[in-house]
Amino acid sequence: MIVPSDIEIARTAAMKPIMEIGSQIGIPAQSLVPYGHDKAKVSASFLRSLGARPEGKLILVTAINPTPAGEGKTTTTVGLGDGLNRIGKRAMICLREPSLGPCFGVKGGAAGGGYAQVVPMEDINLHFTGDFHAITAAHNLLAALIDNHIYWGNALDFDLRRIAWRRVVDMNDRALREIVGSLGGVSNGFPRETGFDITVASEVMAILCLAEDLADLEARLGAIIVGYRRDKTPIFARDLKADGAMAVLLKDAMQPNLVQTLENNPAFVHGGPFANIAHGCNSIVATKAALRLADFVVTEAGFGADLGAEKFFDIKCRKAGLRPAAAVVVATIRALKMNGGVAKADLGRENVDALRAGCVNLGRHIENIRKFGVPVIVAINHFSSDTDAEVRAIVDYANDQGVDAVLCRHWAQGSAGIVELAEKVTALANSCEADFRPLYGDDLSLMAKIETVAREIYRADGVTAEASVLEQLRAFEAQGYGGLPVCIAKTQYSFSSDPSLLGAPTGHSLPIREVRLSAGAGFVVAITGEIRTMPGLPRSPSAERIALNELGQIEGLF
Amino acid sequence: MIVPSDIEIARTAAMKPIMEIGSQIGIPAQSLVPYGHDKAKVSASFLRSLGARPEGKLILVTAINPTPAGEGKTTTTVGLGDGLNRIGKRAMICLREPSLGPCFGVKGGAAGGGYAQVVPMEDINLHFTGDFHAITAAHNLLAALIDNHIYWGNALDFDLRRIAWRRVVDMNDRALREIVGSLGGVSNGFPRETGFDITVASEVMAILCLAEDLADLEARLGAIIVGYRRDKTPIFARDLKADGAMAVLLKDAMQPNLVQTLENNPAFVHGGPFANIAHGCNSIVATKAALRLADFVVTEAGFGADLGAEKFFDIKCRKAGLRPAAAVVVATIRALKMNGGVAKADLGRENVDALRAGCVNLGRHIENIRKFGVPVIVAINHFSSDTDAEVRAIVDYANDQGVDAVLCRHWAQGSAGIVELAEKVTALANSCEADFRPLYGDDLSLMAKIETVAREIYRADGVTAEASVLEQLRAFEAQGYGGLPVCIAKTQYSFSSDPSLLGAPTGHSLPIREVRLSAGAGFVVAITGEIRTMPGLPRSPSAERIALNELGQIEGLF
Repeated sequence: MIVPSDIEIARTAAMKPIMEIGSQIGIPAQSLVPYGHDKAKVSASFLRSLGARPEGKLILVTAINPTPAGEGKTTTTVGLGDGLNRIGKRAMICLREPSLGPCFGVKGGAAGGGYAQVVPMEDINLHFTGDFHAITAAHNLLAALIDNHIYWGNALDFDLRRIAWRRVVDMNDRALREIVGSLGGVSNGFPRETGFDITVASEVMAILCLAEDLADLEARLGAIIVGYRRDKTPIFARDLKADGAMAVLLKDAMQPNLVQTLENNPAFVHGGPFANIAHGCNSIVATKAALRLADFVVTEAGFGADLGAEKFFDIKCRKAGLRPAAAVVVATIRALKMNGGVAKADLGRENVDALRAGCVNLGRHIENIRKFGVPVIVAINHFSSDTDAEVRAIVDYANDQGVDAVLCRHWAQGSAGIVELAEKVTALANSCEADFRPLYGDDLSLMAKIETVAREIYRADGVTAEASVLEQLRAFEAQGYGGLPVCIAKTQYSFSSDPSLLGAPTGHSLPIREVRLSAGAGFVVAITGEIRTMPGLPRSPSAERIALNELGQIEGLF
Repeated sequence: MIVPSDIEIARTAAMKPIMEIGSQIGIPAQSLVPYGHDKAKVSASFLRSLGARPEGKLILVTAINPTPAGEGKTTTTVGLGDGLNRIGKRAMICLREPSLGPCFGVKGGAAGGGYAQVVPMEDINLHFTGDFHAITAAHNLLAALIDNHIYWGNALDFDLRRIAWRRVVDMNDRALREIVGSLGGVSNGFPRETGFDITVASEVMAILCLAEDLADLEARLGAIIVGYRRDKTPIFARDLKADGAMAVLLKDAMQPNLVQTLENNPAFVHGGPFANIAHGCNSIVATKAALRLADFVVTEAGFGADLGAEKFFDIKCRKAGLRPAAAVVVATIRALKMNGGVAKADLGRENVDALRAGCVNLGRHIENIRKFGVPVIVAINHFSSDTDAEVRAIVDYANDQGVDAVLCRHWAQGSAGIVELAEKVTALANSCEADFRPLYGDDLSLMAKIETVAREIYRADGVTAEASVLEQLRAFEAQGYGGLPVCIAKTQYSFSSDPSLLGAPTGHSLPIREVRLSAGAGFVVAITGEIRTMPGLPRSPSAERIALNELGQIEGLF
């Protein structure tokens, strides 16, 4: 069977007016702020009115470590949402917003795929409702206020070598990674080294996704550390009186975006922080609203479960008081074969032995998620090259771990291809088996928290760090930030910090190169290896192929 | 009488649903793309369907040279639109979109004032429908593609010293005026000097405002010159295959934004290029659509008539084939007294002699506009400190020049205060007195065009320029750009290039410091003196006072 391209499928979607989608879940039209006829924000006053309602069950979709073969985590999240609706459940989907910049590089869109997509996919992948532009503006306003403050006399006594706030742009632009700014003489300020990150790496993005409401947002913005004095005491965004204007710029962006799946089921697509230097989940505002509007909420976390699910549990669920009822681990036979040592070019051939060898990656993620007290089920995202023997091998492996594994054909068939998973997820979530607990308590030292994640999730023998890193962690604790969770920035391709170690590596240690405080977002970032916060474009960027056709439709976005 | 602040008035506006405003001028609901309940874009297909309709009469609102006393050009544009509707005419207003960055500096909003405003003023002054964010993204995508092309081998042979495309951000940020980018080693590219302008200074902004439709937009984007080879041949955006993706990013931004005045009359607010290095008018798409939807269209041009009206006539009207029926020159007694030598602190006291002396500024603008074959009327924008004797003096002065001058109280009274002007403008526009012609023909040399504007409009004795500037102009002509109009970037405060020469200076010459080619927009920019394309923030920026109040309303924006 030939499935058309994602954009072709999306273009022929029979979308309902967004007001109708809203009314399906009980949002009155006057509580929706339309952006076109097929996107809307949910008004802040309606969100406040939801406070007292009972909450539905939260289901996390996560995955094995990503490989170039592709796993389909977003696609499965959308498919499962459609599947739950198909079997008569009131279900909503919560996704992250895609970043604009990577669309022009190599990455395709991030709105699902095949017959499991959210639409309008072109809008969602491009400007959408302007949330990321608002975050960029708020972030860069703060940056401009810092340099402006120094220009006019530096009354707050910034140490120019210790300014902690860079600028952002939602574009893959390696030329902006490291710059010297304020050149050109007296009227342009004091030259200093700085640079740009991509917008999804902004602490403002993480804050927007972790804030409970506008007041919390403004308080968190004010708590951002923008730099240090020579005596190393921190200077906050509120010291620059930046928090009010930043909150004004983010007022609309704080409202969740309602869209629909190809099957006209409701989805919130809201916020999208990095899953390495930030926590990688959609906004708390969207998730909490969805839980009060639906009986089942399917959401996803970034990268594989070692990075994404851990941060979802230890940062998002901890902060928001969320108690997930079940987790789905997405795996593909192709990706597990890569984990078992098969080269990408050979993935089309049956190889049950390699698949079995690769299953250790899946197995470890299952073990890990159970440490949070959350029951697990495996979704095998079907590819046409998969053989029956391979499917049987993965089901057997999962069953040996005491979990179900279900073959899903949502990419090619939509909800009809994922009914079994939807039924089993419903049963699992309703079993009340879940007893969610974060991996570590707030009162552990920051280093002990890092060690706990390294040991329990990454299965490292230990953590290594220069004395300066340990000293920095102690300084954060002395400043009162010891109670924060940690956010470890590590390669997504391996449990270890070495991207080439696939499967379930052991015997490694986790080298912490640098630690940073995201005081507004409320976590301490521990960085291992080289983590890029500004991607580059490839030799032949997809921007060269993106254009309008004669009908005014967008081509080349996928 | 105490008039509340602009934001207080705007907040209490009795806005109609934007679909209702659209239906007032015959735009069906399905042809409007809503952004909230009070803003909408007009769909491209509806715009195409307007092609054959007869056009209404176009009225330009311009002003004397701006002073710190304030003239109220946008306020008068809005007021006149309301006034025309009040006396039973089908009238629309076309305004520029305000820039986000300056809102956080010293400048107030740009949506009119008092009882002559377009609303929702907070939205219009902040993100609005995202047009400027889209322009920023398209501009910076092109910049990223340039450095990426060089990074991957520079097949187009860019001379790194002659890259003509900077980056933009919609923020007042002097630290970005001059930077060295691509620092940090091999993986970040080749270090080079560059910088950022504010978004309104982007050639993409000028292109969006001058393009007739999406195809024209894409062609103009492709024609942007991004740099030169060592042999000085130009490299175009289309050589980087950037035009398609840029057009995709600008697809929605090309559709005019419909809002309403406080009196529920329709207004397009669309596009906002600088009025020095660009032409300073709202989009051709919006103006042409308005002319087909209404019998009278009131629009404005940037700064005073020497800069704004000249560019409106010689660039916008020439390119779009528009034939304005009348021009309104806005003056205030306070501003004319400043032109007559009175200090700002003394403007509250009657001073008929100084007023008479300052009227020469008004008189010269009247003469100038008549050179374009457009009949003129003067709007005296009333301030409470104005005396009867002063009003009489200015009316007498205008009458001596053969034009009407009408006292207008729209700021305090809305349309009720501007009925007389509305009636006289109607009569003037209906008189068929207008016989529009640009100031110079396309076939004049570029230098002769500059000299013509300098002589006829600025009343300079001559133009001075280094040999290198003359050589550059000849090079543009040799490359086939000799037929373009010129866009002179000069201080807005004086007819001359010296901002301290108020009134109607003579005996000066116009020094051209630099010329630049905006090949996509389609004009040659001639720069006199220091023209800043990236503003800075003041010592105490208004960002410090902008915040949300307990009701979630925006404070500090005015």
